[in-house]
Amino acid sequence: MSNDLSNKTWEAPAVVAGNGLLDRRAFLNGGAAFAAALTGYSLVKSAAAEPLVDDPWSRETGTVTPALQTPSRFEKHVVRTLSNPKNETRTSHGRTPHHLLSGTFTPNSLHFTINHSGIPDIDPGQHRLVIHGLVKQPLAFTVESLLRYPLVSRMSFVECGGNSAPMFSIEPVQATAQALHGLVSCSEWTGVRLSTLLEETGIDPKAKWFIAEGADSLALSRSVPVKKALDDAIIALYQNGERLMPGNGYPMRLLLPGWEGNMNVKFLRRIKLTEEPAMSYYEGRTYSQILPNGKAYRFYFLQEVKSFITHPSFGLKMNGPGYYEISGVAYSGNGRIVKVMISADGGKSWGEAALQEPVLSKAFTRFRMPWRWDGGPVVLLSRAWDETANVQPLRAEFVASRGQTRKPVTNPLGFPNQHYNSITSWGIDRNGEIKHVYA
Amino acid sequence: MSNDLSNKTWEAPAVVAGNGLLDRRAFLNGGAAFAAALTGYSLVKSAAAEPLVDDPWSRETGTVTPALQTPSRFEKHVVRTLSNPKNETRTSHGRTPHHLLSGTFTPNSLHFTINHSGIPDIDPGQHRLVIHGLVKQPLAFTVESLLRYPLVSRMSFVECGGNSAPMFSIEPVQATAQALHGLVSCSEWTGVRLSTLLEETGIDPKAKWFIAEGADSLALSRSVPVKKALDDAIIALYQNGERLMPGNGYPMRLLLPGWEGNMNVKFLRRIKLTEEPAMSYYEGRTYSQILPNGKAYRFYFLQEVKSFITHPSFGLKMNGPGYYEISGVAYSGNGRIVKVMISADGGKSWGEAALQEPVLSKAFTRFRMPWRWDGGPVVLLSRAWDETANVQPLRAEFVASRGQTRKPVTNPLGFPNQHYNSITSWGIDRNGEIKHVYA
Repeated sequence: MSNDLSNKTWEAPAVVAGNGLLDRRAFLNGGAAFAAALTGYSLVKSAAAEPLVDDPWSRETGTVTPALQTPSRFEKHVVRTLSNPKNETRTSHGRTPHHLLSGTFTPNSLHFTINHSGIPDIDPGQHRLVIHGLVKQPLAFTVESLLRYPLVSRMSFVECGGNSAPMFSIEPVQATAQALHGLVSCSEWTGVRLSTLLEETGIDPKAKWFIAEGADSLALSRSVPVKKALDDAIIALYQNGERLMPGNGYPMRLLLPGWEGNMNVKFLRRIKLTEEPAMSYYEGRTYSQILPNGKAYRFYFLQEVKSFITHPSFGLKMNGPGYYEISGVAYSGNGRIVKVMISADGGKSWGEAALQEPVLSKAFTRFRMPWRWDGGPVVLLSRAWDETANVQPLRAEFVASRGQTRKPVTNPLGFPNQHYNSITSWGIDRNGEIKHVYA
Repeated sequence: MSNDLSNKTWEAPAVVAGNGLLDRRAFLNGGAAFAAALTGYSLVKSAAAEPLVDDPWSRETGTVTPALQTPSRFEKHVVRTLSNPKNETRTSHGRTPHHLLSGTFTPNSLHFTINHSGIPDIDPGQHRLVIHGLVKQPLAFTVESLLRYPLVSRMSFVECGGNSAPMFSIEPVQATAQALHGLVSCSEWTGVRLSTLLEETGIDPKAKWFIAEGADSLALSRSVPVKKALDDAIIALYQNGERLMPGNGYPMRLLLPGWEGNMNVKFLRRIKLTEEPAMSYYEGRTYSQILPNGKAYRFYFLQEVKSFITHPSFGLKMNGPGYYEISGVAYSGNGRIVKVMISADGGKSWGEAALQEPVLSKAFTRFRMPWRWDGGPVVLLSRAWDETANVQPLRAEFVASRGQTRKPVTNPLGFPNQHYNSITSWGIDRNGEIKHVYA
């Protein structure tokens, strides 16, 4: 490769949709078309105008190397927001700060958690997983024994069925992507296929469901069809390379890629094969989708195709007109994301975003779109398609079938609040202020 | 999918190499062939023999949800080992505990670091990256300005040229994979292509090298060919989804996928384009590979194809005969791993391991091999091939060309100590004790 940049003639990237959306292929050739189009904006400064100086940290020895690294003190704001910081007797949420992250998955420190009776302090040497019920040979597994089985690793998002519940509000709630969508995260999970363990126990042909139960003090349990166990269910022991975080189910959890978070039972201690579902508290009540006609969906397991823009978004600042990258995450419980479309004019025109490779099934896909903001008012939307031809619904059609509420509902029993997968829209005004709007 | 496991007839997986190595395809059909072969070993217990009891943590409310998650107190041993815990005036190493991790990359808390003058405490609002020298328009970039450019994400390992230096010892050092190989880790890095920024500055055709300089107090600098900048070099701002760890270069570092760790200059503050390399301290002295004839390789940038077994390995325990998974990581600075072969008989016979998908260029690839240990003495080896037909050298041929030392050398100037990429062997005796051996 030669230094062939030296003689290039720059061409501005093509505008592909209204309000300055640019061709995503501006990325593919190393941004070649990108540079010249910056002309006229003071994104960067002449080095002559801003000479390199020795800052204080360049003039003294640095600090000690720690056994476990933690973020810089300048990143103290990058934390999960907590719904129950005093650990009162109710559910505790920790939400992922999507508007402050980038890339395709979530670091363990910031993975979302919901725990309904605090986080149990489990001794992995004592913990057991029992598989029983309609099996030929009931068995009890220790952590150590599971680690002797063949392991698999896969990226998978986990999303609470109640993620994005504020989006059911009839008026747009002014809140960050963390507050609106912080109950979804994505990790690499490593563990044993549940099918491998069921080969050990054998399966009675009458078994159509299994009941998964956790070792937390309320013994949270959910019913899962056996066919999911034989498909891609995993007993996860590692998360992003290390053992599970306590809030994510240490020492082991059920992972059901693409299915409602609450079913991915944490602190897993029991799998009982049965003919019928248990109709347990969390499947019969909290995580049921109430419909406008007062009825509810039964066994609504799938987390459907969804996307939201993280940059720019509420809580971030625009700093004058010029180039920006519009970026966010898309995912589907059905499989791979195949397309994300972006609009900067409230949905009138759309341009296709670039998808960060590798695009993995049932995992976050980071999408990116080059954009030249002219400083005028815009409304940004993203809309995702998955490989099973499912498309993220427009808001109007979504609320027509699923309902909406008069105000944001945080303890929403009796209101529509589950499985929101419609579009999120960010409005930006001439001052660069970013608001949550409904387009 | 039906519950078709109920009527299967089990077949033991085929033995593919000496001392019990099994067909890797035992994994591919959900481990179907795996289960029956466990017969005769008490890997798991009958659930009837070990009934499920309510442990203390199932009888009381759990603990509070924290803003930043940290590992369980039962995982306190999973930390980096430190060479300079009192931050004396010398180099500080923090090594990754590979033998305690699984999956395909390294969590940020455990990513290895080497810092030669401590870790600078950099204010990202004040930090600047200047690109100057043989360019048409020298420019200064803030963190904020870089985040407006098109970003890319990629998995990439970073490995110190001196990783595995104890392997040059003429006798095998009894130490963990952490102590031997802990100066390599793998992350997803997100940032701006350096080529994008060089399109902004323009390049003088005379420029063949660039000098990258850090903002640490010794202003560590390295010379890099411009063609690497135009290939896949990145100015990284995020690591595994969040901003860089302080020890990994916060707020920005140079990422040169597949090239010697020290060249991936951290706390990056300057890129100066030049006609000639700088012959800086670290490229002319510390990170030169001394050869048996007393000469040294010059500009040995590439981290060549390599693998090592993490499970089982020194520091872990065997718990009786039966099934185990042999697992480890393979990687190459040339591109993708295409094959990893495993031997359990000291290299006499080999079987092919399964590679965890997706296999990504210049990133960790987790390999796995099912193995039935009969309780006799074995010697485990792994050997990797990359897509450019490079193969990990056998130890005899490696030390013949690169040399070895009388003893492990921790401050090894003047001794062969750089770029070890030969094979690591673990010997297991009849008691299940695991030792580092040379096969």
